[in-house]
Amino acid sequence: MTAAAPTAQLSVGQLAERIGRQTESRLSARVSGDPDLMIRAVAPLDHAGDGELSFLANSRYRSQALASQASALVVAEADAQALFPNGRAAGALIACANPYAWFSLAAQHLNPLPPHQSGTDATAQIAADARVDASARIDALAVVDTRACVGAEAWIGAGCYLGPDAAVGPGSRLYPGVRVMAGCQIGARAIVHAGAVIGADGFGFAPFSGRYIKIPQTGRVVIGDDVEIGANTTIDRGTMGDTVLEEGVKLDNQVQVAHNVRIGAHTVVAGCVGIAGSAVIGRQCQIGGAAMIHGHISLCDGVIVSGGTLISRSISQPGFYSGVFPFMPNRDWERNAALVRHLDELRTRLRRLEAQARTQPGEQDIDTPS
Amino acid sequence: MTAAAPTAQLSVGQLAERIGRQTESRLSARVSGDPDLMIRAVAPLDHAGDGELSFLANSRYRSQALASQASALVVAEADAQALFPNGRAAGALIACANPYAWFSLAAQHLNPLPPHQSGTDATAQIAADARVDASARIDALAVVDTRACVGAEAWIGAGCYLGPDAAVGPGSRLYPGVRVMAGCQIGARAIVHAGAVIGADGFGFAPFSGRYIKIPQTGRVVIGDDVEIGANTTIDRGTMGDTVLEEGVKLDNQVQVAHNVRIGAHTVVAGCVGIAGSAVIGRQCQIGGAAMIHGHISLCDGVIVSGGTLISRSISQPGFYSGVFPFMPNRDWERNAALVRHLDELRTRLRRLEAQARTQPGEQDIDTPS
Amino acid sequence: MTAAAPTAQLSVGQLAERIGRQTESRLSARVSGDPDLMIRAVAPLDHAGDGELSFLANSRYRSQALASQASALVVAEADAQALFPNGRAAGALIACANPYAWFSLAAQHLNPLPPHQSGTDATAQIAADARVDASARIDALAVVDTRACVGAEAWIGAGCYLGPDAAVGPGSRLYPGVRVMAGCQIGARAIVHAGAVIGADGFGFAPFSGRYIKIPQTGRVVIGDDVEIGANTTIDRGTMGDTVLEEGVKLDNQVQVAHNVRIGAHTVVAGCVGIAGSAVIGRQCQIGGAAMIHGHISLCDGVIVSGGTLISRSISQPGFYSGVFPFMPNRDWERNAALVRHLDELRTRLRRLEAQARTQPGEQDIDTPS
Repeated sequence: MTAAAPTAQLSVGQLAERIGRQTESRLSARVSGDPDLMIRAVAPLDHAGDGELSFLANSRYRSQALASQASALVVAEADAQALFPNGRAAGALIACANPYAWFSLAAQHLNPLPPHQSGTDATAQIAADARVDASARIDALAVVDTRACVGAEAWIGAGCYLGPDAAVGPGSRLYPGVRVMAGCQIGARAIVHAGAVIGADGFGFAPFSGRYIKIPQTGRVVIGDDVEIGANTTIDRGTMGDTVLEEGVKLDNQVQVAHNVRIGAHTVVAGCVGIAGSAVIGRQCQIGGAAMIHGHISLCDGVIVSGGTLISRSISQPGFYSGVFPFMPNRDWERNAALVRHLDELRTRLRRLEAQARTQPGEQDIDTPS
Repeated sequence: MTAAAPTAQLSVGQLAERIGRQTESRLSARVSGDPDLMIRAVAPLDHAGDGELSFLANSRYRSQALASQASALVVAEADAQALFPNGRAAGALIACANPYAWFSLAAQHLNPLPPHQSGTDATAQIAADARVDASARIDALAVVDTRACVGAEAWIGAGCYLGPDAAVGPGSRLYPGVRVMAGCQIGARAIVHAGAVIGADGFGFAPFSGRYIKIPQTGRVVIGDDVEIGANTTIDRGTMGDTVLEEGVKLDNQVQVAHNVRIGAHTVVAGCVGIAGSAVIGRQCQIGGAAMIHGHISLCDGVIVSGGTLISRSISQPGFYSGVFPFMPNRDWERNAALVRHLDELRTRLRRLEAQARTQPGEQDIDTPS
Repeated sequence: MTAAAPTAQLSVGQLAERIGRQTESRLSARVSGDPDLMIRAVAPLDHAGDGELSFLANSRYRSQALASQASALVVAEADAQALFPNGRAAGALIACANPYAWFSLAAQHLNPLPPHQSGTDATAQIAADARVDASARIDALAVVDTRACVGAEAWIGAGCYLGPDAAVGPGSRLYPGVRVMAGCQIGARAIVHAGAVIGADGFGFAPFSGRYIKIPQTGRVVIGDDVEIGANTTIDRGTMGDTVLEEGVKLDNQVQVAHNVRIGAHTVVAGCVGIAGSAVIGRQCQIGGAAMIHGHISLCDGVIVSGGTLISRSISQPGFYSGVFPFMPNRDWERNAALVRHLDELRTRLRRLEAQARTQPGEQDIDTPS
């Protein structure tokens, strides 16, 4: 059972010192106003008040920043100079290179994780030959199957299941009800949210005589360090060879990752995305919510896909890609969607007119790209 | 362990009396035929037979209503007069203002919930400082963590998990395997189906130096009274502040509700919908299956969204909105979808022709809206 | 707890003999090269090496087949004759009518399921009146509720839940954390992956006075033999009457099947698909990932639907159907999507030009289909 999460109070100066140090000065800040002002929480610009820190990362919200009652405000240098050339009238101002990152680290310092508690609940079922580090924590009614490994200071939540030969790395946290199937590997410092299933069989069948023959799914799921996986997300094991998530990948809730997919390091995938079998996604990509990626294609590093877009071919150029039917009042949609079915006909009619126009006396020729 | 659901038999007259009373006469009915006819079940028009009640809510199915073998039939007054001016030849006819609602209430009376059974299964794990009402029911292998609350006559199914400080209101039912994470609140008379996860972390990361910094998700999920949540649906906790579902909201299966979303009272959301972070959805909206709602936008009250539509901007007028590519035989789709990529080119060619036409002698000018 | 999966070694000749026999010679093969060559695993063309079997099913990969280091290669007769008219230089060649099916059966022989182990874990909770076959296996912390049935050699994984009167047929396997709600039936030899929920309430509500009345969901889910159901997939019980999956249906992960849907035998449904209430899908259909099927429509046998397509009307002709907005660089998409909203206007302008053209002296009439 868990104690309430502790919260910390830190002064603006203490936050600036800690964040500067942990980022090796890449996020060192210029503080104006009282560095001893105590901060106990973070809050949005329009809700922040006494003892709270807020941030401005998008110049669109400058007027909210000006009006904010936050005790401390972290902003970009340009915004600091434009909005507060003489500092803020009340409270502290923190200027740095990446206010959103600074704010996020400050939020971590103000909301530290509770100290790790070691130990296995009496109701957890641990196989005799499982290797559970003495510093790990296993909660009530979790099952750790034969030869599974749990690393140092890992935390396996209530009702989780680790299959035979599964492994969870040091410092990783599995929330209640996560299932890691046989042989699958999770790296260090991973966070896996409730209900995620890692290593179910891939969807592999060969048609034969009007039925389907199941293809044994003998690969694994291999997940790198610092990965986060959302609630009820599913990642299938490889058919032959493994499904791989490289380090730092973040998957939101209800994402489906099929067999033999590979997702490159530090790529983020928003909720409800589906990635079909053997797709390869590069590093530092961003896949918007409910996008779908076809199987057996590859996306190079640095591809950004809009929410709802279906990616049906490989992409070899970094960039921002979209493809969604625009929404409109239903009546307009009915008219326009019907015309979409007849675009080739519209083009044919346009070509006829162009041909006619070209043959009229006194007309110059028109270039007609197809 | 659970006893089989009881079923009741009621006469047409008893049903009419009960439904009239519970709706304060808003659904009082005019019964023709034998009011003592006993009804034991509800059934669709084309399957209903002896002892069964069916309904006609859509005039499209009038011929089925005429042919139906149902012992009793509930219809709108207009349909009653059009189809059965002299009553039905056999069986009872019930005419009222809203036959579908009348039928639904009748189905409830004919399929009453089994009487509530209190008690905690010996295998459930209840923290010493959890507050579980003496009349609540906690099934096998459920876990109720520290300081969690379970209200009067609530029913926590097998293998559920209530995190620290979570609360489930009186009369609510959690089906097996529901997870309610730390601090999240569920109101009275809620129904949460198997595998739903309430209060996983929102998907919040700040990019920094090619990696992502996790933003602590310190808000809660707060769910009002009379809410129903589908199987394997996920609702994330707020980053700062809460994710809120107001009273009477109904979510289908596999819905994803991101951090800091607010859904207004009596809004229904069909299966596979995704709602991105900080979206605000009004009251009495209807969101069709697999629709996707962008983050940081708002939909006013009374918005209806077609299934599969992606809503990318705020909507301030109630109404019916759609946006889906029409399906067609694949060969036609390939042609027309290719042309969608070149619509701007088609327009350019059309403009050229229009310009030519305007300059031809003897032609009147044409208005060319863009 | 589970032992490691055994693997087998078989010679090419043994594989050919077994597969020929089990398919009643429909997959009998012509083997060239050494029939005593031992095979221990299957692998893709470009990874296979010593002791491994690979396959060529698509002529597109002929060059990979030529270069493959696989000890044995199964190909179609046409490919065998085109690529290896004199057999392979090294290793065995297997020619047959359906190399992918042959390969899949070989993979099954090389990766046999571990022998079934009977017995109920001491921590499983079995109702006194449940009927569990003596040869069944029930893993740790599973719950089998009152009157539920588990067939011969069925395997109920850790933490599964079988509701009152639920039934799981002989030889079926439920992976950990599957929930089968009251009264639902699963046939023989089914495979249900972790986190699937079978028999949650359908999404049925009648609007009344600005609120919704819940319609009792009194039907069941009835699932035939040889069905496979993916991780975190949800199948709702019928409102009145049942939701039905016929024999041999395969559902991938995160599929949502609503109340009273019927899916015909040997139909496959890829991940993230949603099928709305009372839809009827024929036999031997293929529904691509993230496709959505509207409620109350029917698809005839042999319909193939592209991934991401929304099917909004019934389909009565077998064939391949698509409907997805093509993706493109975001800038192009913004231009073209905006024009989609104005297609009716473009058509109006085109019609005006056509009308003008027809009235010009010396021009022949143009047929203008609409």
